[in-house]
Amino acid sequence: MTASTTVPAPSTPTATDLAITDITITPIAFSDPPLLNAVGVHEPLVHRVVIEVRTANGLLGLGECSGGSTRLKNLAAGANAIKGVSIFETSRMEQLINQALDPGLGAFERAAVFSAFEVAALDIQGHATGRTVSELLGGTVRDEVPFSAYLFYKWAEHPALDGKPAITDDWGEALDPAGIVRQAQKMISEYGFKSIKLKGGVFPPAQEIEAIQALRDAFPGMPLRLDPNTAWTVETSRWVARETEGLLEYLEDPTPGLEGMGEVAATAAMPLATNMCVVAFEHIRRGVELGSVQVILGDHHYWGGLRHTRELGAICETFGLGLSMHSNSHLGISLAAMVHVAAATPALTYACDTHYPWNGHNDVVKPGTLRFVDGSVRVPTGTGLGIELDREKLAELHRQYLDARMTARDDTGYMQRFVPEYTADLPRW
Amino acid sequence: MTASTTVPAPSTPTATDLAITDITITPIAFSDPPLLNAVGVHEPLVHRVVIEVRTANGLLGLGECSGGSTRLKNLAAGANAIKGVSIFETSRMEQLINQALDPGLGAFERAAVFSAFEVAALDIQGHATGRTVSELLGGTVRDEVPFSAYLFYKWAEHPALDGKPAITDDWGEALDPAGIVRQAQKMISEYGFKSIKLKGGVFPPAQEIEAIQALRDAFPGMPLRLDPNTAWTVETSRWVARETEGLLEYLEDPTPGLEGMGEVAATAAMPLATNMCVVAFEHIRRGVELGSVQVILGDHHYWGGLRHTRELGAICETFGLGLSMHSNSHLGISLAAMVHVAAATPALTYACDTHYPWNGHNDVVKPGTLRFVDGSVRVPTGTGLGIELDREKLAELHRQYLDARMTARDDTGYMQRFVPEYTADLPRW
Repeated sequence: MTASTTVPAPSTPTATDLAITDITITPIAFSDPPLLNAVGVHEPLVHRVVIEVRTANGLLGLGECSGGSTRLKNLAAGANAIKGVSIFETSRMEQLINQALDPGLGAFERAAVFSAFEVAALDIQGHATGRTVSELLGGTVRDEVPFSAYLFYKWAEHPALDGKPAITDDWGEALDPAGIVRQAQKMISEYGFKSIKLKGGVFPPAQEIEAIQALRDAFPGMPLRLDPNTAWTVETSRWVARETEGLLEYLEDPTPGLEGMGEVAATAAMPLATNMCVVAFEHIRRGVELGSVQVILGDHHYWGGLRHTRELGAICETFGLGLSMHSNSHLGISLAAMVHVAAATPALTYACDTHYPWNGHNDVVKPGTLRFVDGSVRVPTGTGLGIELDREKLAELHRQYLDARMTARDDTGYMQRFVPEYTADLPRW
Repeated sequence: MTASTTVPAPSTPTATDLAITDITITPIAFSDPPLLNAVGVHEPLVHRVVIEVRTANGLLGLGECSGGSTRLKNLAAGANAIKGVSIFETSRMEQLINQALDPGLGAFERAAVFSAFEVAALDIQGHATGRTVSELLGGTVRDEVPFSAYLFYKWAEHPALDGKPAITDDWGEALDPAGIVRQAQKMISEYGFKSIKLKGGVFPPAQEIEAIQALRDAFPGMPLRLDPNTAWTVETSRWVARETEGLLEYLEDPTPGLEGMGEVAATAAMPLATNMCVVAFEHIRRGVELGSVQVILGDHHYWGGLRHTRELGAICETFGLGLSMHSNSHLGISLAAMVHVAAATPALTYACDTHYPWNGHNDVVKPGTLRFVDGSVRVPTGTGLGIELDREKLAELHRQYLDARMTARDDTGYMQRFVPEYTADLPRW
């Protein structure tokens, strides 16, 4: 072909070939260590969902999102709405899904539902065109995506409960600065991460500042982040910010709400980051007006997929905000999507969060393409997301889900099985 | 294929096949009627540029942008910077072009240079994958894109000059309300437009308000816009806004600068629109703070291509701004790009501007795909932009360019050939 043409090549699939014919929604459950946070402790099983979208010509695309019975109901409605749509019409899919969902549903849940299908659609688009997902997003600005070591206070084991034995793991206990440093050393030796995030909000802030200081001593020069998930008042947050001045790359969600964050930001020396007070496009305007945050933690599951995450990056650049990336417990489909969009988003200059070291051994993605080297994951080079589903593993995790009869994540309720007086009222300090 | 796979299909072009090997930059000149505006009158010829990008495997993509000797120099530098890059790596192209351009160059010119190549790259991406450009942007949210009738005060002819005879056109004179209504009737009968924009800033504002009133009387219920290109002071703008209350869909750039626009917006009943005070991402933040505008006129030539125009749409949605589309004198390559991105941008809910009725008879695009029906252009269905270059016409317009020895657009200098005392100092009233 030496001239532009309006005639598709003979092998080009038509819109009909690429119509969505079938969507499989598979709830799964996989094991998770007893990681502590501001509202309790991770349960022994994470509930998550794998989406398989198929087209008339037999192409398959994969998506992944968090679970729960409400989410499953919304995913089913979304899947029903986009049957017959061409896999390239993702904006139309978004409109159809929004129309199909309960009108009372908020922007956050709508975005989460669409996101799972958008990722699967982009995976298929890649297979159909022989390109990677990052190429479909405008190509990469980085060949590998750096992640941070995501540290948690944790128990040594899930205690014995309801006649079931305790569940141990390879990570051991981490309930003080020394335990946190040991965890960091193990994680960094295995994955090579070059920055560290500590999930806080578990112990009184003075103890968590000690842990940050211990990490600074053990890892000189390494960027550190602390995320208490809004466990502190404005006053406490301001005090922690003073105590950690010069220690933190950013302080994440110290206190609840855009107003409170703005009050902390007004006096804090370091940037404030969030994945709690600005989690949808509709929150950005007021956040900018109040100066609530300086870094937004994007997350394609929260922000309506990969293209909208790139748009979030454009907004951050336009309004002088930094962009980092949030993570929930996830497997390799989400990791692949995170890597593709992070590689394709110029604004995303911070190392991303990932729970993969805690959950990756459960992966439904066949090994090989998603490997951490020096803390980074190279962008997969296969078509679409560049990953392949392990159907035996998927079936195993689905059985595990059925056996567990899970309906919703409940870190607080699980904690109360062991500490009946525990409450998740925040801010706590 | 029944499972996701990491192996590209055998026929998939590799990154090497899709490397940019050759870029042709062809300056052209085409005829333009004597259209009046706030800084003078359109010259008999428009200087514009056609970009042809070719890949190793012989695919061709088209771009178009405004001309001038500075632009040609910057385009040459940009072309040189992206040789060898895969056509799917548009973000990398943007980085390379930015590095190659003079560091002192502003965001606006940088965006304009990249835009021409990005459109050509997306055209090739479409040919390579058998998809339309709008599909590569996320698919369409509208099958056809509405445009507005773009009216100008105009002379009956380009006067005889330098021994050359006068140049007439089919449109006739329009120097008063009756002439403007006649022009609108002709344009709407030929193109079917369902909204009207009057380029003002030519006559004292009271006369232009009369023209708007005459259009309202002749076209009841049709959305009307007035654009004096910053010809008025804040005080005059506020007076015009009062006088046209209930008549205008939006008032475009009545006065210069973000501050002045903000002062007008504070009292005007209708939205203010702009393609003059917010023309790059770096202007948006202050424009939002000052409430300077309620509608941004996007333009992929100004805003760095089609993907960035979609991002502009996301910003407009996030900050409660409307999105419309600006036009300069253009041919079919730009029109096709405008149609694809407008069809793929949910936020773009206003009818777009276009100069095509004034210039389309000069088109370098072969006829057939770009037709106005009821004021709208259907999204081309061929691969890429869905258009084909008319090489004879391109050669003819290039000869015209060479013969004319054009270097830069100069509406003011051309006006001064006939009205020596004319100045373009704005605001004028």
